[in-house]
Amino acid sequence: MTTLLPAPDLAQLDALDARDPLAHKRAEFDLPGDIIYLDGNSLGALPRCVPARLSQVATEEWGHHLIRSWTRNAEAAQDWMALPDRVATKLAPLLGAKPSEVAVGDSTSVNTFKALAAALRLSEQQRGGQQEGGRRVILSDADNFPTDLYMAQGLARLLGDVEVRTAPGDDITEHFSDEVGVVLLTEVDYRTGRRLDMRAITAAAHARGIVTVWDLAHSAGAFAVDLGGAEADFAIGCGYKFLNGGPGAPAFLYVAERHLDRAEVVLSGWMGHADPFEMARAYAPAPGARRFVVGTPQVLSLSALDAALDVFGDVDLGALREKSLSLTDTFIRLMEPLREKHPLELVTPLAHAERGSQVSYRHPHAQQVMAQLIECGIVGDFRTPDILRFGFTPLYLSHGDVGRAVAGIAAVLDELEGPA
Amino acid sequence: MTTLLPAPDLAQLDALDARDPLAHKRAEFDLPGDIIYLDGNSLGALPRCVPARLSQVATEEWGHHLIRSWTRNAEAAQDWMALPDRVATKLAPLLGAKPSEVAVGDSTSVNTFKALAAALRLSEQQRGGQQEGGRRVILSDADNFPTDLYMAQGLARLLGDVEVRTAPGDDITEHFSDEVGVVLLTEVDYRTGRRLDMRAITAAAHARGIVTVWDLAHSAGAFAVDLGGAEADFAIGCGYKFLNGGPGAPAFLYVAERHLDRAEVVLSGWMGHADPFEMARAYAPAPGARRFVVGTPQVLSLSALDAALDVFGDVDLGALREKSLSLTDTFIRLMEPLREKHPLELVTPLAHAERGSQVSYRHPHAQQVMAQLIECGIVGDFRTPDILRFGFTPLYLSHGDVGRAVAGIAAVLDELEGPA
Repeated sequence: MTTLLPAPDLAQLDALDARDPLAHKRAEFDLPGDIIYLDGNSLGALPRCVPARLSQVATEEWGHHLIRSWTRNAEAAQDWMALPDRVATKLAPLLGAKPSEVAVGDSTSVNTFKALAAALRLSEQQRGGQQEGGRRVILSDADNFPTDLYMAQGLARLLGDVEVRTAPGDDITEHFSDEVGVVLLTEVDYRTGRRLDMRAITAAAHARGIVTVWDLAHSAGAFAVDLGGAEADFAIGCGYKFLNGGPGAPAFLYVAERHLDRAEVVLSGWMGHADPFEMARAYAPAPGARRFVVGTPQVLSLSALDAALDVFGDVDLGALREKSLSLTDTFIRLMEPLREKHPLELVTPLAHAERGSQVSYRHPHAQQVMAQLIECGIVGDFRTPDILRFGFTPLYLSHGDVGRAVAGIAAVLDELEGPA
Repeated sequence: MTTLLPAPDLAQLDALDARDPLAHKRAEFDLPGDIIYLDGNSLGALPRCVPARLSQVATEEWGHHLIRSWTRNAEAAQDWMALPDRVATKLAPLLGAKPSEVAVGDSTSVNTFKALAAALRLSEQQRGGQQEGGRRVILSDADNFPTDLYMAQGLARLLGDVEVRTAPGDDITEHFSDEVGVVLLTEVDYRTGRRLDMRAITAAAHARGIVTVWDLAHSAGAFAVDLGGAEADFAIGCGYKFLNGGPGAPAFLYVAERHLDRAEVVLSGWMGHADPFEMARAYAPAPGARRFVVGTPQVLSLSALDAALDVFGDVDLGALREKSLSLTDTFIRLMEPLREKHPLELVTPLAHAERGSQVSYRHPHAQQVMAQLIECGIVGDFRTPDILRFGFTPLYLSHGDVGRAVAGIAAVLDELEGPA
């Protein structure tokens, strides 16, 4: 593939990379050399530390120490029992949370169910019990990631008296009403990359007595999330995107400390019990968000996430966000000439405050274009109906990668549609 | 540790091992040489094939193929999307089920919630909708594994009009009444190893219009389960005990084919959707039990289970059960002299039909005794309040192991209490 970028552009990309404070992080990932990976918002790349950790967990902790690993080295918090809490402690700073506010495990979908059920109950409690015709609406973004809507629909079917209502995410606050008990929003839209104002929307929700559940699938690890500062009530998110925890990595749930003493655990399993090995017949919740851990954690997957999070240990989250914006700004700027030649519509906001760590374009033949791009080693995503989605993980992408990607996109579009 | 067994006993154990048709399976496990592992009913040992598979999934499927692994080699069903179904297909013959009746993923606890919610709804449907004062009791064994009770309690708290009632497992059918909608039972008691008669209890339940949910945590992989033959309605079970899938391995859920077209999915996630990548706003269940898969599967843990199940590929389940009973019979017989000298009470039934693949004794100082046994390399389990639990996995234990274990138990008991 011939690089089509003008020399001044290339020089500028080199200059940006030369002063990138996160440039050294790329070496911590095992990325194939023949692709440019713009899909870390779907599945984060493999941190080099993970395979060794997996091997150690399998052969030593499982194979050699066997059942003893559940409690072994508990004094050093190296026991499997404490593994969810250890991971929560690493996650908390990325979320603007305290470790005791974070529970790690299960899938994002299952955590959405837990959070919605707890939020509905909290909404009732805040009004002194369920009233007839009370706030039984879960409001969400019509364009929310489908599983969020599906899980809300499942809870509504189970309860019978709950309605799932959707409205456009961009003016969601206009749909806040006295019927709404809970609002479920994804901070960064999975298709457009549009970032909502978590703080303002949460404040507006609270002003109307509405409990918030934030999905951080495309936020956690992409930039500093500030759940505490935003006074969010509940949040959920995904371990396998910008957190690089591996395919289907365990997810997380956040519950604000002020709600913890009355946060209702619907999926009340033994690993969220105050004393699991007491084997009591009645459930009693563990202190803190740990109560939202349900069954036995999938230790292999959880250990991979645990190791992967170490990559964030020395990362300044301000620098992470700055580089993310620089990468997406650069991509948008370099793509501009292509928009004049090809039917590309930028759907990601230009305003930094409204942007996550991805850039998306509509294209009438998006599915075909993306298939061809992937064929050429430029790995992004197609999303229905017509979205080309490019994710930018600041830990392992350079401005040079962005330049090479744009050159490749130009070549593919020219080949498919003919140059101008 | 000196072997205390009489020579004739040792000769008999050798003879039993010499004609063990499963003796070759032990080489497929990576067991530490310094212990006798009688806790495979808590965490199965490491199959030798697993670490290589984990390494391949991490470095190749995740690290190299990245996001493409979700759909790569789909024509050969080697894609991650099909992984839950591939594992279900391997599990089905162990359960007496069809592959389309089995969903793999999540924890046993979460699957218990799914199964109970679906069973309650089915119970309503069978009576033409919910009636006032209808069958809103979930009946369970008072000594059921706690998480089963906790999950039922959580569902009851959520629904408000459901009662969780417990009764002794041994005469559970006497508590079947018109108030009971669902009965939740664990086939093999986690403490005593007592096995219930699934077929008879299911028939008695059906005669009273009650829907059954069977927990197979201590059954699957221990002996041939016959869900189809028993006409069970729902079942759940665990991947990390006799199935050797690794710590916290994904669990499974069974739903009888006759219920599939109306089985209600409460935890309705995108991976159980008929077309996940259609990204439709409304949930539509996948065909078969796949609809009970919820979020993105934890691929690393699920791949370990997938590899581990290959160990069962050439195992005759009749021979498995025969060896299991031979091991537990032998253990009980060799322990008899110890019962004359020490305050041991056998709580596992002698009748084969009533026994799982474990043997348990009450002992007034059970916790101390087990701690000492583990110290001496005889790894069993203590269970509150006073149970010494010994699990016998026929795939990797020999009659010689049983003999050495009894000799060690004798030595520990003599040391703690003084010989007779």
